[in-house]
Amino acid sequence: MQPMVAEILDGKRLARELHAEVKKQAEALAAGGTRPGLATVLLGDDPASQSYIKSKIKACHEDRIESFHHGMPAETSETELLELVATLGGDPRVHGILVQLPLPAHIDESKVITAIPPAKDVDGFHPANLGRLGLKGAEAAFAPCTPAGVIEILERAGVTISGKRAVVLGRSRIVGLPVSMLLLRNDATVTICHSRTADIGSVTREADILVAAIGRPRFVTADMVKPGAVVIDVGVNRVDDASRKRGYRLVGDCDFEAVAEVASAITPVPGGVGPMTIAMLMKNTLTAATVR
Amino acid sequence: MQPMVAEILDGKRLARELHAEVKKQAEALAAGGTRPGLATVLLGDDPASQSYIKSKIKACHEDRIESFHHGMPAETSETELLELVATLGGDPRVHGILVQLPLPAHIDESKVITAIPPAKDVDGFHPANLGRLGLKGAEAAFAPCTPAGVIEILERAGVTISGKRAVVLGRSRIVGLPVSMLLLRNDATVTICHSRTADIGSVTREADILVAAIGRPRFVTADMVKPGAVVIDVGVNRVDDASRKRGYRLVGDCDFEAVAEVASAITPVPGGVGPMTIAMLMKNTLTAATVR
Repeated sequence: MQPMVAEILDGKRLARELHAEVKKQAEALAAGGTRPGLATVLLGDDPASQSYIKSKIKACHEDRIESFHHGMPAETSETELLELVATLGGDPRVHGILVQLPLPAHIDESKVITAIPPAKDVDGFHPANLGRLGLKGAEAAFAPCTPAGVIEILERAGVTISGKRAVVLGRSRIVGLPVSMLLLRNDATVTICHSRTADIGSVTREADILVAAIGRPRFVTADMVKPGAVVIDVGVNRVDDASRKRGYRLVGDCDFEAVAEVASAITPVPGGVGPMTIAMLMKNTLTAATVR
Repeated sequence: MQPMVAEILDGKRLARELHAEVKKQAEALAAGGTRPGLATVLLGDDPASQSYIKSKIKACHEDRIESFHHGMPAETSETELLELVATLGGDPRVHGILVQLPLPAHIDESKVITAIPPAKDVDGFHPANLGRLGLKGAEAAFAPCTPAGVIEILERAGVTISGKRAVVLGRSRIVGLPVSMLLLRNDATVTICHSRTADIGSVTREADILVAAIGRPRFVTADMVKPGAVVIDVGVNRVDDASRKRGYRLVGDCDFEAVAEVASAITPVPGGVGPMTIAMLMKNTLTAATVR
């Protein structure tokens, strides 16, 4: 077996740095009379969603951000949810509002997201915020937390983005599209690939920076990566693993061990982009409280 | 001199087709009691802006769309303009609102655009509309007229977009970004280039569909184009021409004659994308009146 050549970009460590910065600023804000506050809303009891929300509330406590959590039954009507969002929108203690997705099928997700005031949309999913993402010099926007975390990792790892060829695998509203816009705003030449892309390997091999967000376990193989590329793996996929007590393990969209022999740097899964996502949520909440 | 190989994509003819369709539907709507209406707003007396507005009003008349024009002095305050926009926003006869850009320097353009109700934003520049552009299956949005015109030309010319590599030169809010989003929504693999792109020719040569919107006269030379590519030239640049009475002529972002020997199809300037832009404005206004 060849030795690994890639630097492992440690998202946990980078996230710890960011949390420490947020905490310090949150304390300074609180000393000035404004305690930053984040409202979280969860419908139903999906275990994955519950686990995400728990991590977010925990991060609030650690970073000195006031947490207002609203757990509601899965049967909650769209009207009730919209009323709650409106109440939170008018609550001066609440600087950020996060409605945990996905929502139950009887609720129009886009209606709920659009009901969040853009200035409190710390998840960055409001179309008015998404629409500003690609614009240099446009009004400050909240970038969605995972894409913002990708950029934060690149910056903190000292990777130059400007002038580089960046290829993004995936065009979702949550990751692929916004991360493309952020890379573009940072002066990369950006290519967006997806399920309809022909000869996808020939496209990904052009990338100096490759962002995988396609949601397929180990889809990106070593031959799809240009030697020396920086690879950011946003995928979180469960694969069966009988050797684990819970019967599965988490893997990214990249064949990590093989790609690490080709890339110059790569984020692991777990422990790469994941920890940065929650840290960016805290940072966005702090920004929302500061702007006010 | 070699013979031209490229098919010339005649924007004038395609626009005529579209105008005829809009007119027919506008008459049908009017027969049902709703006459589509477009409000245009022009500050000052810039000759280019006046000429654009004149063409738009003329198109309204021809396509049976009611035209409400508001010409105001260049000194109009931002508050006055915002008041007018609010009035038009509440006027049930007005289905579309177009504020001619650029606005005088003392007015915050983004504030004015954001004040237009997204449902009347037939120019497609409201962030809430821009943000929905790249989303498949998202709420219907108005696409900005020039980018929408580019797609309309490709479709009417029978060019397959899905699965093709599209390269967009330029990342402006008005053309580059939205046309990239529309190409992506049509399942192209999209690369966005700009002034900071390294070795731009190597990128443009990957394009099956090349959209030039960089605003530099004859920037795209034949060696930058893959043989057989479809080239859409959005540029409109003045170059000195002593042989013309007015002392200049209009050229696109492509070296037309040379590129036409390499491409399989190309839009001329003038007479390509330009005529489609106003036709798309009429189509958007019709849609706004229909949705209501």
